[in-house]
Amino acid sequence: MAVVGGGVVGLSVAWRCAQRGMSVTVYDNGRGAWQVAAGMLAPVSEAYFGEAELTALLVASAGQWPAFAQELAAHGPTGYRSEGTLQVALTQDDLAEAQRLWEYQQTLGLPVTRLPAAELREREPSLHPRLRAGALAEGDHQVDPRRLVTTLRTAAGAAGASFVARRITDLPSVEARAVVVAAGCGSAELTGVPVRPVKGQLLRLRAPAHQPGFQHVIRGYADGRKVYLVPRADGEVVVGASEEERTDSVPTAGAALQLLRAATDLVPELSEYELVEVGVGHRPGTPDNAPLLGRWRDRVVVASGHYRHGVLLAPATADAICELLVTGEAPELIRPFSPQRFAEGG
Amino acid sequence: MAVVGGGVVGLSVAWRCAQRGMSVTVYDNGRGAWQVAAGMLAPVSEAYFGEAELTALLVASAGQWPAFAQELAAHGPTGYRSEGTLQVALTQDDLAEAQRLWEYQQTLGLPVTRLPAAELREREPSLHPRLRAGALAEGDHQVDPRRLVTTLRTAAGAAGASFVARRITDLPSVEARAVVVAAGCGSAELTGVPVRPVKGQLLRLRAPAHQPGFQHVIRGYADGRKVYLVPRADGEVVVGASEEERTDSVPTAGAALQLLRAATDLVPELSEYELVEVGVGHRPGTPDNAPLLGRWRDRVVVASGHYRHGVLLAPATADAICELLVTGEAPELIRPFSPQRFAEGG
Repeated sequence: MAVVGGGVVGLSVAWRCAQRGMSVTVYDNGRGAWQVAAGMLAPVSEAYFGEAELTALLVASAGQWPAFAQELAAHGPTGYRSEGTLQVALTQDDLAEAQRLWEYQQTLGLPVTRLPAAELREREPSLHPRLRAGALAEGDHQVDPRRLVTTLRTAAGAAGASFVARRITDLPSVEARAVVVAAGCGSAELTGVPVRPVKGQLLRLRAPAHQPGFQHVIRGYADGRKVYLVPRADGEVVVGASEEERTDSVPTAGAALQLLRAATDLVPELSEYELVEVGVGHRPGTPDNAPLLGRWRDRVVVASGHYRHGVLLAPATADAICELLVTGEAPELIRPFSPQRFAEGG
Repeated sequence: MAVVGGGVVGLSVAWRCAQRGMSVTVYDNGRGAWQVAAGMLAPVSEAYFGEAELTALLVASAGQWPAFAQELAAHGPTGYRSEGTLQVALTQDDLAEAQRLWEYQQTLGLPVTRLPAAELREREPSLHPRLRAGALAEGDHQVDPRRLVTTLRTAAGAAGASFVARRITDLPSVEARAVVVAAGCGSAELTGVPVRPVKGQLLRLRAPAHQPGFQHVIRGYADGRKVYLVPRADGEVVVGASEEERTDSVPTAGAALQLLRAATDLVPELSEYELVEVGVGHRPGTPDNAPLLGRWRDRVVVASGHYRHGVLLAPATADAICELLVTGEAPELIRPFSPQRFAEGG
C-alpha cells in the first residue's frame, strides 16, 4: 500500500499498517501543517459544541494518546507532556465564554477543576493579576509536532515502511493496491474531496536567558480573543493561532498584533520575550469542519481534512484506517466521517 | 587623516575632507545604526524643546540637506524625498502634545500647516477616520539610509578616499596625523567619551501585491505612543521606533506589539501588510543627548553621539569637522558640542 503525505496523520497510518505486516511506502514532499502546529491535545474546544459524533471521535483519540506516546517513546522524543492545561479568562465576558466550555467538558466526563484567580496565580505566577478565573483541564495534554514527526518516521521505518521524497501530483502515478491520501490541503487536488486551506498564523517567542519562564500550557480568552500559549522545555513559547479563510502564506502585521496583544494580556512577562518567528500554516478544513475518513473511490482511501485536530486525531485515524484496509469495513467510530458524504449524488 | 567608522557621519566627513584635498582612509567594520535608521530629516521633535543650541544645529543641518542630496545624486540614489511629513494625532491628549510641537516649529520659522481631520484624509485616505487633526511639516524630508551609505561611499571614493574593512579596537594602531572617531556607540571604548547605546526596535512591513499603499511619511501620536511610518517607493514601510536604555540586540514581543498597535491605530490598512522583519539598532546617546563634535585629545577628533539625529546632522557635522581639521578652530555652530564638556575636570 501507499500513503501520500508524510505528516502526522500519514505517518501514523503508515506506522500502524506496517506493524500489521503490510508493505508500506510513504510519499512525502517535506511540507505539512505540522510544521507550525502547536501540538495541543485538547479534545473539546468551543467550535464543537453539539457535534456529538465528532466529539466522540476527539475524546476517543485523546484517550488513546497516552499509550500512543508511550509506544513511540521507544523510537525517540515526542515532547509529550501530561500536566494538563490552564484555561483562563481575562474579562467577565471571557469568563462567560469559558464557563460554557467547562460545563460542556464536564458533561462529557472530562476532568475540569475550576480555579479562582488567586489559586490560578499560585499555580502559575506569570499570569496577569487581573484574570477573572480559570480551570485546570487535566486531560488536555501536548506534544511537540516537529519532534513527533521525526519520531513517527523512525517508528514507521523500524516497522518496515519505506519513504520516497516526492510530491505526488496525480494518483495514477502511484503504484499500489491501496492508496491512503493523507495530504492535508493537497488532498483536494489529488482526489476531488472538498478540503480547503484555513490559514493559521502563530508566533514563536523565546524566554530571556536566565529566566525560568512560565510552566503551563495556557489556553485563554482575552477580551474576546482566543489564544493559546505553549511553553517548550527549551524556553520556546508558541503563541497561536489565527484562523483565516485565506490561501496565502504571508505573515501579516494584523495577526501578529492580535496574538501579541492577547498573549501579553494573559502573561505580561511575554513582552520581554524575543520574537523569533511568525509562522504560517494551512489547516485542512472541510465544509462541515469534520475530517474525511474512509474509502473514496476504488483503491483510494482518504484520511484528511482534520482541520485543527490532526495531531489529536492521529491515533484514532491510524487504527481506523488500518482496520478498514485489513477488513474492508470502516469501524463504527469513523463511519460518520466517510468522504462519501461529499460525493456527487452520494 | 583617518576616519574610524563608515556610517553616515563618518562617510560624510570623509567625503568632505577628501574634496578638500586631504588624504583620507576610512576604517569600517560594516555595521552601524544606519542599517536600521528610518532616515527622517525632522529637525524638531518633542525631545528637544528649549535646547536652543542643539535646535540651531539641527535646523542648520536640515537646511543643508537639499544641496547635500543634490550633490550626492551625481554618485547614486539616496532615496531623498522632499514632500514633507504628515504629523497626526489620534486622541485629544495626543493633539495637545502635537500642538505643543507645532507651535514650537512655528516659533522657529519652520513651515507647518495645520490640517483638520477631513483635509488630512483627503491628502492621505489611508489614515484612520477618527484622527483628531494633523499638520503638514513641509520641511521634514527623508532619505533611505541604506542607499545613502552606499552612495556616500561612492562619492567619498570618487573624491579620493580609500577604505579599509577592519574593526579598530585601539586608536594607537591607526597611523594618521589626525583621527576622526565617528564610530557611534563604539566611540566610547575607543576614546573614553561617554556614549551609551540606546536600543531602538523598528518593523519593516511590506504592502500586499497590487495595493498602492499610502504615500506620505506619517509621524504620529497614538494614545500616547509616538510612532513614525515611512513608506518607501518599493512598497516597504518602516515603522519605528522604540527607545530603550538597553544594550542587547534582541527583538522583543513587547516592542513589536507597541509599534504594531500604534501603526495600525493610525493607518488601519497596515494590518494587511506583511511583517517582514523586526530590526534592532543602537543609537549613540550622550549624557545630555547632544552630539560630541570637536577635538578630544591630541590628534583625536570626535564626531559621534548623534543619538537619533545622525542622518540629519551629517551635512553640518561633515562641514564643521572638515573646517576644524583645516583651520584648527571649531566653527561657532559646533562649539557648544565640544566633547571637552565631558572631559574629567574639563
